[in-house]
Formats: sequence, C-alpha cells, structure tokens
Amino acid sequence: MQTVTVDLGERSYPVHIGPGLLARSELLADYIVASQILIVSDTNVAPIYLDSVQKELSAFDTTTCILPAGEATKDLAHAAHIIDKLVEHGFHRDATVIALGGGVIGDMAGFVAACYQRGVAFIQMPTTLLAQVDASVGGKTGVNHERGKNLIGAFHQPTCVLADTNTLGSLPDREFFSGFAEVIKHALIADAEFFDWLEVHMEKLCQRDSEALIHAISRCCTIKAGIVAGDEREHDKRALLNFGHTFAHGIEAATAYTRLLHGEAVAVGMLMAAEMSRMTGHIDKRDCDRVLELLKRANLPVDAAGIEVKAIRQAMSMDKKVRDGKLRLVLLESIGHAFVDENIDPATLDDQLEAVLCEYTGQG
Amino acid sequence: MQTVTVDLGERSYPVHIGPGLLARSELLADYIVASQILIVSDTNVAPIYLDSVQKELSAFDTTTCILPAGEATKDLAHAAHIIDKLVEHGFHRDATVIALGGGVIGDMAGFVAACYQRGVAFIQMPTTLLAQVDASVGGKTGVNHERGKNLIGAFHQPTCVLADTNTLGSLPDREFFSGFAEVIKHALIADAEFFDWLEVHMEKLCQRDSEALIHAISRCCTIKAGIVAGDEREHDKRALLNFGHTFAHGIEAATAYTRLLHGEAVAVGMLMAAEMSRMTGHIDKRDCDRVLELLKRANLPVDAAGIEVKAIRQAMSMDKKVRDGKLRLVLLESIGHAFVDENIDPATLDDQLEAVLCEYTGQG
Repeated sequence: MQTVTVDLGERSYPVHIGPGLLARSELLADYIVASQILIVSDTNVAPIYLDSVQKELSAFDTTTCILPAGEATKDLAHAAHIIDKLVEHGFHRDATVIALGGGVIGDMAGFVAACYQRGVAFIQMPTTLLAQVDASVGGKTGVNHERGKNLIGAFHQPTCVLADTNTLGSLPDREFFSGFAEVIKHALIADAEFFDWLEVHMEKLCQRDSEALIHAISRCCTIKAGIVAGDEREHDKRALLNFGHTFAHGIEAATAYTRLLHGEAVAVGMLMAAEMSRMTGHIDKRDCDRVLELLKRANLPVDAAGIEVKAIRQAMSMDKKVRDGKLRLVLLESIGHAFVDENIDPATLDDQLEAVLCEYTGQG
Repeated sequence: MQTVTVDLGERSYPVHIGPGLLARSELLADYIVASQILIVSDTNVAPIYLDSVQKELSAFDTTTCILPAGEATKDLAHAAHIIDKLVEHGFHRDATVIALGGGVIGDMAGFVAACYQRGVAFIQMPTTLLAQVDASVGGKTGVNHERGKNLIGAFHQPTCVLADTNTLGSLPDREFFSGFAEVIKHALIADAEFFDWLEVHMEKLCQRDSEALIHAISRCCTIKAGIVAGDEREHDKRALLNFGHTFAHGIEAATAYTRLLHGEAVAVGMLMAAEMSRMTGHIDKRDCDRVLELLKRANLPVDAAGIEVKAIRQAMSMDKKVRDGKLRLVLLESIGHAFVDENIDPATLDDQLEAVLCEYTGQG
C-alpha cells in the first residue's frame, strides 16, 4: 500500500492506494465519528462490492443508496433523492457518507455530504481508474445542469480515500482505458519525467499490471495533491488541472454526455489544447505527435468526428474558467509544464478555436 | 451609519447599518468583480425597493429573480429555479448574487451563491429586522426539507452586508415585532447589560425609533460576529446562537411552517429553553419571568397552544445539534450567559422535554 497525504491544514487527508483495501476497514476507524453511515453506489458497482464493504462495516449502522450507473444520473434530482434517504433515516450531522463507485458517484455523494446539514463527513472508495487518479483528490463535488457540467457544486474534502486497485480488474476495457486520459494529463501539466515513464510503461498499464498501476496512480495523486494544496479553491494554479477540460466539457455537453466517456472527451480535449499550444507558438509538432501517440497507445479516441462545432462552442462559453466574459485556456508551454493563457486577443482566440474544432470534428 | 466587521480572516466582511444605505452603491464598489449581477427578491419586497436598487446598480448588467414571499418558498425546487436563471443568462464564476429581502431570500440566495459553479460572490441587503440582526451575519445558508428546517445548506459568507434601517418602516407590525425574538436572544446568550438596555428601551424600539433600532441591530451583529469569528462552522461555541431554536424548529415543522413566523416560534422556543434551564437548576423563576415579560412587551407570542406535542418531538429529533443520537440543548446559566448542555441523562431530558412541551402547548 502507498499513501499520499493531501495537505490542507485541518482538512488534510490520506489517500491509500493498493490491492485489497476495501477489506481493510481498520484504515477508516479514525474517520467514522458516529454510527450512522450511508453508502452511495451504483447499479454496476454495488452487485460486485457492496456486500463485502457492508460486511466490513457491520459494526456500524449502514444504510445504502444505489443509483442508476452513468453520467445521466449526476443531476440535482438524484442528489435530492440521496438527501431524502438521509432525512428518512434520521441521519445527523455527525454521520458519514461513503461513495463506493466511479467519478459520478463520488461527485454526487460528495455534493450531498457537503450540503446535508451544511456538511457531514465523507469517505471515498473510488472503483475506477479515473476516480482513483483524479476525482478522489481535491474535494471538488457537484452535479450537472442540463446546460453544463458540474455547474452546481461545492468544495468538500473527504476525510479519507481508499483506492483499492483490485477493483480495476473488474472494469470493462473501454472504461478502464478512459482513465488513462487523466493519467496522461497529470504528466503533461506537471511532470515530464512521468510522461517519459508512461511512454515506456503504457503496454504494461494497459495489461493492468498491478505494480505499474499503483505507481501511476500514486504519481497522479501526488501531483494533484501538490497543486490542490497550493490553491484549494481554484483561484489560480489549480486551474492547470483543467487542461483539456474546457474542450472536453464542450464536447460532452454538445453530445448530451452520451457519446463519449469523460476520459475519452478529455483525451480529445487535450489534443485540441495541445494543438492550440502549438498554434500559439508554445510547443512544436513533435510534442503534439508524442501526445497523440501516447493517447492512441492508451486506446483513447483522438478526434471528435461528426460533433457539431457550434454546439461545442456554445457549451464552452459556460465554462467555469470564464472570467469577466473572457475564456481562459490552459495551454502547454512544454510537455510537463502547463499555464493559464489569459492574454490571447479575443478575436485571435476565436479564430484559433474555430480552426482547432473544425480540424478535430472534420468540419469546415 | 455604523459598521460591524465580521472577522474571519480572508473571508472577513463589513456589515453596514444605517438609514438610506440601499441608495449608497459606492459601499459595494469594492465587492463587485465582474459586471454580472443577479438580484434575488420576493413579491413583498421587490415592488417597494427593487427599482431603486436596480437604478443604483445601473452601471452593471443586472438580472432579477422574484420569488413568492414566505417560508414555503425556501425549498430545493425554488433554489433550482434561481440556478436555472443563472445558467440561462450565462452567469460566470466571477458574477455576484445579491439578496434583497428577509431571511428566506437571504438563506436561499446565499445557498445558490454557495453552489453555483462551486461558489460565487454574495451580497446581502436584508430588509427585515430579523434578517438584519441575525441572518446577515455568519454565512449560514440553506433551504428546508419537508421533514426539517435548513436540512440542506452550506456555509458561505457574504462579501458585504447593507442593512438599511429605513426598510424597517415598511414592515407589517407582526413581521417587525417577530424580529425582536432574535434581538432578545442575543442579549440572553451573551450580554446581560444589553438585556437591561432592552428592558428600558422596548417601547421605543416597538415605535420603530431609528436611533434605538440602529443601536440594537449593531449590538446584535457585534455579539453574533464575535461568536461566529471564534467558531465559523459550528463545532462548539456557535451552537449558543441556537438558543430556543431546537424547540422553535420543532414547532415550525409541526405546523408546516405556516402558523407562526420564525421569530414567533423562536420566542416560544426561548421560553421553553428558559424553563428547561430552570428545571435543571441553572436560573430561577424570577429570571424566567423577566424573559416572559420582555417577550410580551415585544408583542411576541408566549405559548404554543394547541400544537401537537408528538409532532414537535419528532421534528426536534432531526435537529442538527443532535450528536451521536443525543440531543444537545442550549440552556441559560444566567441572563446573559448560555451554554450547551451535553450531560443531561437521556431519560431525565425526555421527561423534562415532555413536561415543558405539555405546559406550553396546554396539553397532558
């Protein structure tokens, strides 16, 4: 087991990474105050892991809430449903909410934990690669609005995270591979050496080699924890973690979250952001090709063929990084170093965005 | 104008108190970052003040959202409606939400400001006595659940508060008087001298004497700011501000929030809590009589005749101050000094609660 500490003063917490952690409830002992526990999970994950997790926590008074699997569940109506469950069972402010599942479950359960009685304790048990490398660190919670992703949410840090790498064995290929988008992102924005390592080990990772996965997940959590510790509420530096995401959110919203998995949209979004970085003179064609090549080897999509450019643009204008009407894009200065570009002339930005979107959607 | 500073580090903010402040937008200049402003108000307040506030802010891009007046509006569905408005108008993360109204509008608009894009700036313009002395300080926001009050919410501090005492002139008598419950509460829990002052000046206050009101509001904000600064997220000391509120929330939920105004329920709740303080040997009959007398002179109700004891008890068990299944009551050690009683034997507490509730509802 490896442990990464997210250092946020009195809100600091450990992320434990390793095989078989769901069966190690002693790791949670310090974080459960009262006996009331709600386990939130979904229809994919619950049949495989819920029973054993409940048995592990049999000393407590556990209740469960199982939601339909998929991004479409992540809305205010389903959050209200979880809250009803808490109220119905008389949950108090010292209760604990546990998210057992992927990013959707983590984001929703975390948002409910943030709002119920103005905040109850929250433990994450991420069961997808995407959630283990990304959603479990940093305390961003939220639900989607039909007009934009994560438009409703809160910052609410978990008290403890158990990333059991055994759960990655049960992931369908497509979902597993989609997690590599965020892995590659962490390397691209902050760690050139890790990018080199990924180029060497991508085949092993795709074969779900346990040791390689634990290394990659720990590396990502460490990178993200470092960024989050310096800027918990995203006033500046934390925005780097959104590399590729402004495009990705646009793509996802334009296709009603149904066509690509989040990681897949991020893969395409990162290619677009890399291309923007090239057009603005920061990286060269060879760098772009390295990104493209690694994404391909991770079995990720590398275009957004057939998606409407206009729909993507409209959704991008709702992005949370817009400041006083100006879109702020995260670009690459080099592989391993991202920055927020605030100084592009709006007309130029507009033209470049259009060109990049047309290129990757095969339009124009 | 008097100004009380709520001292919360980087989340500190000023509460300006005085006549005519709604016409002094220069006080807000430092707190509005981008041009997008949503003013949330209700059908009682908007017809009187919205036009002039909008004119004052004509340099900005203001949008309005007017909700039905009354506590029944304070639910998740109406919060979602405000969020829709923000999304519809493409509000970004640097936008500002302004609450123009009483406690319901402040709590809801504040909750929306806390959740929209994980938090946007929030300015309060409280127009009721209750909101000026209580809701505008401390950052508690939230909405009701049909099974309990404020069960869904967040801590989100405003960036600035303008308490225009001229708005108190337009309040209906009953609503105006109900605000004195929170005024008296602040004196009871933390300031014996202020309680003496209230005994001397209650008639003047009831006649809406401007100078007396400004003094009372400033005093309350100062007391509350002091308590909140020491315990922003209610881990201990802040619970004192809930004196009378566990009972009040029970009474309100038992009558579906329709029979008594919040302040009126708090008045009765404080009498019940004072009586509990007497039964547990902390204050004497003479103290209880002083509380009763002052509430009467403020034209507040002093019993809960005809409300079902069982329904009150059930709603009280959902109170946010319950910890690991144990109800924690705020009691008086003396007039001007409250404390949280955690050590009452549950069976005794049960009997005493029953006795007090029966006494004030005229049952048993």
